[in-house]
Amino acid sequence: MEEPDSVDRLALIRERLQGFARAREWGQFHSPKNLVMALTGEVGELTEHFQWLTEQESKELSDAELEGVREEIADVQIYLLMLSDKLDIDLLRAVEDKIAKNEQRFPVERVRGSRRQRWPE
Amino acid sequence: MEEPDSVDRLALIRERLQGFARAREWGQFHSPKNLVMALTGEVGELTEHFQWLTEQESKELSDAELEGVREEIADVQIYLLMLSDKLDIDLLRAVEDKIAKNEQRFPVERVRGSRRQRWPE
Amino acid sequence: MEEPDSVDRLALIRERLQGFARAREWGQFHSPKNLVMALTGEVGELTEHFQWLTEQESKELSDAELEGVREEIADVQIYLLMLSDKLDIDLLRAVEDKIAKNEQRFPVERVRGSRRQRWPE
Amino acid sequence: MEEPDSVDRLALIRERLQGFARAREWGQFHSPKNLVMALTGEVGELTEHFQWLTEQESKELSDAELEGVREEIADVQIYLLMLSDKLDIDLLRAVEDKIAKNEQRFPVERVRGSRRQRWPE
Repeated sequence: MEEPDSVDRLALIRERLQGFARAREWGQFHSPKNLVMALTGEVGELTEHFQWLTEQESKELSDAELEGVREEIADVQIYLLMLSDKLDIDLLRAVEDKIAKNEQRFPVERVRGSRRQRWPE
Repeated sequence: MEEPDSVDRLALIRERLQGFARAREWGQFHSPKNLVMALTGEVGELTEHFQWLTEQESKELSDAELEGVREEIADVQIYLLMLSDKLDIDLLRAVEDKIAKNEQRFPVERVRGSRRQRWPE
Repeated sequence: MEEPDSVDRLALIRERLQGFARAREWGQFHSPKNLVMALTGEVGELTEHFQWLTEQESKELSDAELEGVREEIADVQIYLLMLSDKLDIDLLRAVEDKIAKNEQRFPVERVRGSRRQRWPE
Repeated sequence: MEEPDSVDRLALIRERLQGFARAREWGQFHSPKNLVMALTGEVGELTEHFQWLTEQESKELSDAELEGVREEIADVQIYLLMLSDKLDIDLLRAVEDKIAKNEQRFPVERVRGSRRQRWPE
């Protein structure tokens, strides 16, 4: 079976998230302010998986660790989609615009190999 | 020409991000542990836009505020994509799996309208 | 029995925290970088208590909620003390200095009642 | 004259913070919910100092880096004090109680040297 391509996969996900909240009458709690807090909570949970690991260990997660991390990453993504929807932001377009901006902002010859050049800020 | 669907667009975005880091030799700093910290930094910046707003105000951002928020949301998304790539996680699949899990976990009839049922956790 | 006053209460707490980590051989995990991540995790947990509450509700926590919040606040404080110790920072002095700086930076007549003046930044 | 002990100093700091907010009429923005968000913002700024450093580098900050970190740590502490005050939580007592609880919860002989035993949670 083929992956969907005529229907948009991200659009489907957004519709499912909207339906999920609607069925549970949870939209009333989903102000942008609250969704940003929820995002913080999930990033906190994600962080707890990594806080005592060395950088090297963070590249070599066990299957069990990776499964936990995968769920937290999904949660972050879910809230980010919900937040974007509430604010009528086209998430992929915003990303594309930011990459273009950063390509201007951090010329290769100036920042190559420099740890101090944080990106994206 | 047609608009590419989100899967194609996401694949292009991921390639651009990889090329961006490669050209600047920044891959050396992008361990999963470090990317999680970078995600925290961006969520912190996003939070600063909302911390003194009421929930109602957070729904009625000015154009200038919204533009700032849009950039922070893009930054969060960028680091989340980079992190997923480093961990070989299929981000959309992870989201779809988590939604399915949550649909089981929070039956409509049990949680409808209840603030205490946090989701996703 | 009296409260300790000749012996310093915060100094006692710091000694207990150092002894706790030493006895468990956990000092090896407590680099400043890792402690900052641990702080993020705790702030995430604290945030989860508040994310779906209105501002008004956040002022009227039940006893059970308050007890949970009290523990998370303690955890944040504990990691902040451990981090300060690792970096040889006198935490109270740093706070006093920052308040003095902010008193200069945000003159009363300029910022009174203005939401946009974030403080401290 | 003697140096005041930490309890006295903390009491003075709390009074200064209350006076600072009162003079600027900022108390109206300082609901517990909002202060938790402000805490997130500051921890995000603190994290940005450390995100691309190795653990070893995080132990050897330059004077300039340390000064920046010291200010962010002060900001976190300031918001934590303001939050505790709003919730009528005795911060030092909460810490002492949590340490006692953790001493029970993580017996030395069981957790010694184990990275997986997160503490405090």
